[in-house]
Amino acid sequence: MRYAFLLPLLATTPAFAQAGGAPIEAVDPMIGTAGEGHTFPGATAPFGMVQLSPDTDTGCEIRACYGHAAGYRYEDPTIQGFSHTHFSGAGHSDLGDILVAPQAGTARLDPGDPARPGSGYRSRFDHAAETARPGYYAVTLADGSIRAELTAGTRTGVHRYTFPAGVPAHLVIDLRSSLYNYPGKVLWSGLHLRADGTLTGFRETRGWAPGRKLFFAMRFSAPLTGHGFVDRDTAVTYKGFQGPGRGSEALAEKLGRALEARLDFGPLAAPLEVKVALSGVDEAGAIANLDAEAGGFDAIRARTAAAWTKALGAVEIAAPAPMRRTVYTALYHALLAPSVWSDADGRYRGPDDQVHRADGFTFRSTFSLWDTFRAEHPLLTLVQPAQTTVDVVRSLVASRQHSPDGILPVWQFAGRETWTMIGYHAAPVIADAYMKGIRGFDAAAALDAMVASASYAPYGGLGDYMARGYVPIDKEPEAASKTVEYAYDDWTIARMARAMGRDAIADRFETRAGNWRNSFDGKSGWLRARLSSGAFRTPFDPTAINYGSDYTEGNAWQYSWFMPQDQAGLFRLLGGDAKAIAKLDAMFDYDTSKLDYSHAEDIAGLIGQYIHGNEPSHHVAYLYDYAGAPWRTQERLAQIVASQYKPTPDGLAGNDDLGQMSAWLVFTALGFYPVAPGSNEYVIGRPFVDRAVLNLPDGKRFVVVADGLSPTNRYIAAVTLNGVPLTRSYLRDAELRAGGELRFTMAAVPDKRWGSGRAARPFSMSSR
Amino acid sequence: MRYAFLLPLLATTPAFAQAGGAPIEAVDPMIGTAGEGHTFPGATAPFGMVQLSPDTDTGCEIRACYGHAAGYRYEDPTIQGFSHTHFSGAGHSDLGDILVAPQAGTARLDPGDPARPGSGYRSRFDHAAETARPGYYAVTLADGSIRAELTAGTRTGVHRYTFPAGVPAHLVIDLRSSLYNYPGKVLWSGLHLRADGTLTGFRETRGWAPGRKLFFAMRFSAPLTGHGFVDRDTAVTYKGFQGPGRGSEALAEKLGRALEARLDFGPLAAPLEVKVALSGVDEAGAIANLDAEAGGFDAIRARTAAAWTKALGAVEIAAPAPMRRTVYTALYHALLAPSVWSDADGRYRGPDDQVHRADGFTFRSTFSLWDTFRAEHPLLTLVQPAQTTVDVVRSLVASRQHSPDGILPVWQFAGRETWTMIGYHAAPVIADAYMKGIRGFDAAAALDAMVASASYAPYGGLGDYMARGYVPIDKEPEAASKTVEYAYDDWTIARMARAMGRDAIADRFETRAGNWRNSFDGKSGWLRARLSSGAFRTPFDPTAINYGSDYTEGNAWQYSWFMPQDQAGLFRLLGGDAKAIAKLDAMFDYDTSKLDYSHAEDIAGLIGQYIHGNEPSHHVAYLYDYAGAPWRTQERLAQIVASQYKPTPDGLAGNDDLGQMSAWLVFTALGFYPVAPGSNEYVIGRPFVDRAVLNLPDGKRFVVVADGLSPTNRYIAAVTLNGVPLTRSYLRDAELRAGGELRFTMAAVPDKRWGSGRAARPFSMSSR
Repeated sequence: MRYAFLLPLLATTPAFAQAGGAPIEAVDPMIGTAGEGHTFPGATAPFGMVQLSPDTDTGCEIRACYGHAAGYRYEDPTIQGFSHTHFSGAGHSDLGDILVAPQAGTARLDPGDPARPGSGYRSRFDHAAETARPGYYAVTLADGSIRAELTAGTRTGVHRYTFPAGVPAHLVIDLRSSLYNYPGKVLWSGLHLRADGTLTGFRETRGWAPGRKLFFAMRFSAPLTGHGFVDRDTAVTYKGFQGPGRGSEALAEKLGRALEARLDFGPLAAPLEVKVALSGVDEAGAIANLDAEAGGFDAIRARTAAAWTKALGAVEIAAPAPMRRTVYTALYHALLAPSVWSDADGRYRGPDDQVHRADGFTFRSTFSLWDTFRAEHPLLTLVQPAQTTVDVVRSLVASRQHSPDGILPVWQFAGRETWTMIGYHAAPVIADAYMKGIRGFDAAAALDAMVASASYAPYGGLGDYMARGYVPIDKEPEAASKTVEYAYDDWTIARMARAMGRDAIADRFETRAGNWRNSFDGKSGWLRARLSSGAFRTPFDPTAINYGSDYTEGNAWQYSWFMPQDQAGLFRLLGGDAKAIAKLDAMFDYDTSKLDYSHAEDIAGLIGQYIHGNEPSHHVAYLYDYAGAPWRTQERLAQIVASQYKPTPDGLAGNDDLGQMSAWLVFTALGFYPVAPGSNEYVIGRPFVDRAVLNLPDGKRFVVVADGLSPTNRYIAAVTLNGVPLTRSYLRDAELRAGGELRFTMAAVPDKRWGSGRAARPFSMSSR
Repeated sequence: MRYAFLLPLLATTPAFAQAGGAPIEAVDPMIGTAGEGHTFPGATAPFGMVQLSPDTDTGCEIRACYGHAAGYRYEDPTIQGFSHTHFSGAGHSDLGDILVAPQAGTARLDPGDPARPGSGYRSRFDHAAETARPGYYAVTLADGSIRAELTAGTRTGVHRYTFPAGVPAHLVIDLRSSLYNYPGKVLWSGLHLRADGTLTGFRETRGWAPGRKLFFAMRFSAPLTGHGFVDRDTAVTYKGFQGPGRGSEALAEKLGRALEARLDFGPLAAPLEVKVALSGVDEAGAIANLDAEAGGFDAIRARTAAAWTKALGAVEIAAPAPMRRTVYTALYHALLAPSVWSDADGRYRGPDDQVHRADGFTFRSTFSLWDTFRAEHPLLTLVQPAQTTVDVVRSLVASRQHSPDGILPVWQFAGRETWTMIGYHAAPVIADAYMKGIRGFDAAAALDAMVASASYAPYGGLGDYMARGYVPIDKEPEAASKTVEYAYDDWTIARMARAMGRDAIADRFETRAGNWRNSFDGKSGWLRARLSSGAFRTPFDPTAINYGSDYTEGNAWQYSWFMPQDQAGLFRLLGGDAKAIAKLDAMFDYDTSKLDYSHAEDIAGLIGQYIHGNEPSHHVAYLYDYAGAPWRTQERLAQIVASQYKPTPDGLAGNDDLGQMSAWLVFTALGFYPVAPGSNEYVIGRPFVDRAVLNLPDGKRFVVVADGLSPTNRYIAAVTLNGVPLTRSYLRDAELRAGGELRFTMAAVPDKRWGSGRAARPFSMSSR
């Protein structure tokens, strides 16, 4: 039976995979590089430590930082150089480390002014001479007539520069350059040319991450004919004793806060390859990482292309080319973080700035957890081997063990805590993995870490939250958002504790999961922040979006829906399903033409008060299912997908947020979405692709078919799971993991009865 | 015979050692704390990593840094706090790390103004309530009525504070505080209160040493009742994302550039002990160092007192109390550096900022080599077990192996190169040890390091020196000093190479040893800097002392004598002994009343143009011996000792320079001095103590007796070595190490014949 069932599916695979071309060809890394998507177009391997990509503008002092969070903006006319680290879609930034600028003829040491193409070491470029593919990027730098190609392995980046014949070739390495480069950001840096010709160095920065250290090692395919290490620091009052040698540019080492290296190669007969490895541990680690990835440009490019083919092959998609391109690019963006942070030998620098060793796993960092607990991590449990999620959980737990505050990461990268956003959303990530049956980590230690994180009084008003059941706004900003997000996280802790038989913990956190009610104003129907006195804070404006308000990057319109563990309880408080639906409709249909949110970063992609460009809205379209009206969810999803995603550089409505915006689309395209990670349920929306196969981690296949799908046929007429009609509006994780076929029949008119019954609705605490 | 010879000596030991009290009681750490001695009065173990000492003023912005190079000035009315690292007598500074200020009642966070006693957390104090002993310091802080006591083990410092009864006790730890605290010095720092109550932290500074890292761990005898970690930084434009917790003073960790910790203990019934360990490796290293030294204040104080008794016992001295106090304090000061830098487990941070492990030796740092190659290191070969010198040599060679530039230390501390002063004087240190038969290091690697250091073109004009035989002043400042110091260092390399049978190297460097002639103007009789053209630079003023001149911290008067390997060659150039003596006399008798050297730091202790407060003069009084006139040396030494040393806080004429000024006195008091380390000869001056016993490293004893010594009897009438008349004016190292008795008969009139013959004179290349 088993074989008989599997064989026909296997037989269809090759042809199916070919339809529309290989997945790697369907990805366009340019999507999201214009507007506020904040993605980068450069070369990276799946979850690679290195993201080698062009920076068009790095100067916060010249333009606003926010728009250049990923270094590259499609709209810009010049490329300053190529740096080795980038976030994909972050709403805040840092990185842009170890910028390399190839120079033909004479080496300029100043980056020049982005507003004056032709100035400094930057170069004009033309998108027509630019190529971006997974793991490969190329561009012609017009000012020096240099062809630049980039590729990357997991911990290495390789540059290949073809200089004009007969002209002296130089590289300028500018350790001053950085994204979000506020004055004083570089705390310290060093350059060290070793006897074997390897250039190593490091940089310690005070940026988004405090005191972040990054080391590098760099080798060249041609010998150096000369070098100069210069310190461009002008602000320092004391540079050390000015003894012999200190000022020499020819010394083998230079330390300072504003270093540049000029590397001379003379005229070159062949393209210059520059292989660079990073390490968060030390320079020896960087050298070892360099050695660990054998081969030159072409070998590494080929290996990384194979890795992408394998990773993207987790989902086979048949759809019209624009949608297929959009969804595959979303999948690509979802496979960039949490990225590798441990060295090839397992060592990594942890939250305590000390070096630890990951035994039996790969330490990951770049945890944008407030964003990614929602759909990104649940997606990884389906499209990646379980080890990826095990790595994530083990990294989170190890981070907690090394955290000076003894808690799980909040927003961590390069192993360092940034204290960005709110909540303890490592808890739902871990609980989601555990509830789905993923093992391979120390569950007791994980639960212990979750409880510790939920009990650390100095963090985000948690002391008051534990004492009062809500965060008081007179003591802690954004108190309403914190209260509801803590309550959801608490519910995930309770779920995992219950499953582990740790009932005392489960009972305690189940009670806490109801705390969302303590900040909900039943009279007005809004989530609102309370004062210590118990009164709700006034004045109150449900449309206001301000930093330090009752809410986090949002207002009452979005946050009044955030109780994923108990949407049914919320609907009852609102006065029933009809009133809940009316309020949801009011949100989407709100006339925001008179509102100005331009002061708030990341508030983009507005459909009324539904703000797809930011995460608090992400689950909201699916909430109609909880009110028995899945057809309304289907309508809203059509509205969102049509307006918020397109296969063009400006194709993302807001920050991709380390894959969350993209993971939303991958799930939504397949027809379902994890509204409440930890529940083991996916709420059914509607598919946006004709057919898809999830090649599940254990070799099983889950096929989604959308019969009759078209722009007009936007409603579900019927659903079958493995040939049996599915009457509920959600899928169970176990059903998905078992493999099988989910078949939608699409229609132009809604079936308002489907999924309307109470028993058909997704999980809610109050419905049990 | 052997026993018969030794027994009488042994029999005399106890009574002899008692005369004038135990050596440890004869030491006064206050000597050198006033004026420009730059010593510190606080607690330290022999060669200890920790120097726990009061700082009276740390603010370069308020007063000149130079006067507070050791943190404490005897003249100051207040103590700011107690910090854990200090140089003894450096002419430049840094350190003053991890300042602790005890506070009674309320905790003030500002240091206050040294000019306004009573302001800030500083306190007034009275020298009458102050005690300083080797390994122990105590003072009463008048403003808080707090009795403060300090002691130190090798890698730990222990504070003991007795607070007034019933008053809440606090400690303020100010990570902003530093010596030579130029704005921007603190690159990064951290505080971390661990679950077990241990406070750890670190500081990375850009001071004299570039990018120096220091870690600490601190435990308290009473539990904390509260803490606050505050960031006083006002200059930073971006402090990181202001998420929940970031601003909380109650978090367990704080990172920043201007950190302070307020630690609360409430009213205490017993004195508060604070045990602090340092590490250059990491916080775990500091904790391990803390654990490695067991016990509390009294136990560590007792152990360190025993260590001092043993160390000072290397020399037994009988002399009038003031002289005995002066010489024992000099010996104490000579036993502080090169101090321990490796952790208890052998790990240390090296010149490459990477962590290495010392196998089979203790890594030392604080190498003030331009000063200490002269007498400090030669003294250590006599008063310390050979392992001390082996540690020094192995540390130097290991440093070279980890040096980014591949050369031996120049002026290194905390494992970092500062590029201070000139020369490659690690070479004479190593050669001196090797020539004296000290083994236990890899001599081939050491010689290789010496040759590499002497051949590194980018350093201090060495490229030109190798090509031309002199350093040209139009290309490199202080070229005359560099030329002669390189030539001397070259000679020591030649000596060691020859002894090792490496004749090619020996020949090459023996030739280079004659390079001093290339910068000597035979016509005028001065050492002068040459231009690339070969001409001497004009205008020329032998009395001028300026930075960037032909000379290093000196002028032609001092530097024209620096050819320790070939004083006889110099004298011939000068026109013979009589002219050399006349020129020496002219130097000592020069009328400097019309010269102003106040712009030049470290130019102090003038006797004419002989400047005892700085090193280039140190050997000059002994040069009369090379001209056959030891009696003139004897006169000059009387003149120097009487005017430059006294047993009072202002008892040092100039910076002690990590023991060099002191080592000069110890040797001189014993009657001989190593004018040319590497020659295995000590030039005889005259003794200043009635009797001394050198308890040599291998258990042998070398006794010096000065019969008839008195202020009037300042000349040598006769000398016997082991009862046999000694007619030459130098001792051989082997004679000294064999043990025996050197007996001087002192007289009021000189014996001008003694030591006058050519064969009686110390080694010179040109005499061979």
